[in-house]
Amino acid sequence: MKHYRIAVIPGDGIGKEVVPVALDVLQHTAEVFGDVTFNFTEFPWGCDFYQKYGMMMEEDGIEQLDKFDAILLGAVGDPRLVPDHISLWGLLIKIRRSMDQSLNIRPAKYFEGLASPLTAPKEFDIMVVRENSEGEYSEVGGRIHRGADEVAIQNAVFTRKATERAMRYGFQLASQRKGKLTSATKSNGIVHSMPFWDSVFDEVREEFPEIKANQNHIDALAAFFVSKPQEFDVIVASNLFGDILTDIGGAIMGSIGIAPAANLNITGEHPSMFEPVHGSAPDIYGKGIANPIGQIWTAKMMLDHLGEVNMGASLLQAIEETTAAGVKTSDIGGQASTKEVGKEINKRIKVLS
Amino acid sequence: MKHYRIAVIPGDGIGKEVVPVALDVLQHTAEVFGDVTFNFTEFPWGCDFYQKYGMMMEEDGIEQLDKFDAILLGAVGDPRLVPDHISLWGLLIKIRRSMDQSLNIRPAKYFEGLASPLTAPKEFDIMVVRENSEGEYSEVGGRIHRGADEVAIQNAVFTRKATERAMRYGFQLASQRKGKLTSATKSNGIVHSMPFWDSVFDEVREEFPEIKANQNHIDALAAFFVSKPQEFDVIVASNLFGDILTDIGGAIMGSIGIAPAANLNITGEHPSMFEPVHGSAPDIYGKGIANPIGQIWTAKMMLDHLGEVNMGASLLQAIEETTAAGVKTSDIGGQASTKEVGKEINKRIKVLS
Ligand SMILES: CC(C)[C@H](C(=O)O)[C@@H](O)C(=O)O
Ligand SMILES: CC(C)[C@H](C(=O)O)[C@@H](O)C(=O)O
Repeated sequence: MKHYRIAVIPGDGIGKEVVPVALDVLQHTAEVFGDVTFNFTEFPWGCDFYQKYGMMMEEDGIEQLDKFDAILLGAVGDPRLVPDHISLWGLLIKIRRSMDQSLNIRPAKYFEGLASPLTAPKEFDIMVVRENSEGEYSEVGGRIHRGADEVAIQNAVFTRKATERAMRYGFQLASQRKGKLTSATKSNGIVHSMPFWDSVFDEVREEFPEIKANQNHIDALAAFFVSKPQEFDVIVASNLFGDILTDIGGAIMGSIGIAPAANLNITGEHPSMFEPVHGSAPDIYGKGIANPIGQIWTAKMMLDHLGEVNMGASLLQAIEETTAAGVKTSDIGGQASTKEVGKEINKRIKVLS
Repeated sequence: MKHYRIAVIPGDGIGKEVVPVALDVLQHTAEVFGDVTFNFTEFPWGCDFYQKYGMMMEEDGIEQLDKFDAILLGAVGDPRLVPDHISLWGLLIKIRRSMDQSLNIRPAKYFEGLASPLTAPKEFDIMVVRENSEGEYSEVGGRIHRGADEVAIQNAVFTRKATERAMRYGFQLASQRKGKLTSATKSNGIVHSMPFWDSVFDEVREEFPEIKANQNHIDALAAFFVSKPQEFDVIVASNLFGDILTDIGGAIMGSIGIAPAANLNITGEHPSMFEPVHGSAPDIYGKGIANPIGQIWTAKMMLDHLGEVNMGASLLQAIEETTAAGVKTSDIGGQASTKEVGKEINKRIKVLS
């Protein structure tokens, strides 16, 4: 019997609705399989917490989280209460960076029973490896002057270490999938960081001669996601470019509410964090209509990461069977509630032979 | 009789195939309307020129261009001959910046007879106002150290003047269209330049209380372009974000080969430049299959800019009739050659009543 201690941060908005459903599915899956137990510890951090205590998490929050095997997070942010750059940098991005969660891994694929906005989504099945620790998201920079003369400077910082780490992970992943890797660049317009990105890519690809590697500028790549998404396998991208591409991936699947993500610590020194791609959607919070699939698929990624790949596979299959059976929330054309979808997924969890 | 002197830069790759077709259509349109003449002067600048002379344009190229009423450009770049950051910064971006072409205006809309990759593209009709002089495309930055310690720093620079100019143009354009403006931001992740961008947006919107203004993060906005493109009217975006969104717009229309663009000088001190969104596509160059519609629609934007809006309207109508009649290049599912499409468009040019 294995025991996993999971830190749970529902966060804001619909995070508070989809996380309990995902926990219920995890608990049920553990019972069906019978060889693991989960111990969930909830942390009430987020914008409500900020309003009471003036911070997004407790001061020793990172140390507290560090004792767990993994972190399951819902969504962070509610701009009506706290400006986004404060809430996100005080919780989501803070955890990503303090815990050296250097890669953000985001799958997207065609799902039976989901209406994609694309006419031909069928062969769509990609994995985006997003650099998660630096790049365009940086606190380096500032503003000078006021009024008409004001200038804002934003520094994007790309280190060799982080860039190479993302590339190498991308190549390794591609070698376990279809053997194809595409690097997202923009070296024709962004003339310092992106040519650097390209040169690291060119070096690392030498180590993987069996992988079919190419690069596309982010503008073209975003367009290709729409016009020929089935041509891609693994994509390696900077923090910003990966963010954009994975949201498009979510849209292609039929709803951003489905897309999962893993913030991976690949050194094993700190726990990894699992959070869906969607945000906190405060506008639909409390109605019981949020799609829990993104959060549940995210829990599947956590299971895989913990080594429980059979449980993970069962979970993904149960999700696909549930959507194929038409049990869907309204964002994907159904009428089921958040909780109903969770229950229907539970019914379909089984030990796969 | 009005006389227009047009500087013509076919540039590289398919630019050399589609530009002659666009000139032919312009010439024919002038004859049909009978009240203007065009004087075209061609400049052989581009990667071939670079290989001979070590520069992308003549040294006094900017002064030469300055004497014209407008510039029509094909496409620049051929990475097999010259690295992109040299070819583009030595010609395309050099002209944009030296001639204070501060805005890049890019329409995208549903076209009868074109197969969009989206299931519901019908009401799609947007205009992207892209800041064209600064932002993420900047030569400020560099690299330090070698090997494992290497770091690349890229500065994005946003000035009040350029940001405000783009916003104000966006609001004005929205007031002539459906009265809706969306600002592309990413202030939750990019914490200096984008909160600045947002604050300028908030100020300028006060001047236009009649416009329905909102903002979306670029990741969500790119996804919305796929899931609900018909909800947008005018978008105002930074250099990079506008670039990405307009390529997605091209993909939605059915081919990037259709999308046009205007690099506008709004002070009247220098000529504006008109270039399609697509690149030089060296892989298909010489086959006679390049889609000339992007270049011809671009010529229509030039006509509008010169004040010849009737000619411009006739041109766009002729393009739409031609695609609706099934005369299309292979990228949009037809069999016509570049030149045939041009001829068929010519047949449909008429003085509209
Ligand atoms: C070639 C490149 C520098 C250019 C840009 O991004 O500006 C192109 O993509 C465009 O959109 O005109
Ligand atoms: C909320 C935001 C900072 C975040 C990001 O861009 O990293 C989100 O969009 C995501 O993709 O997880």
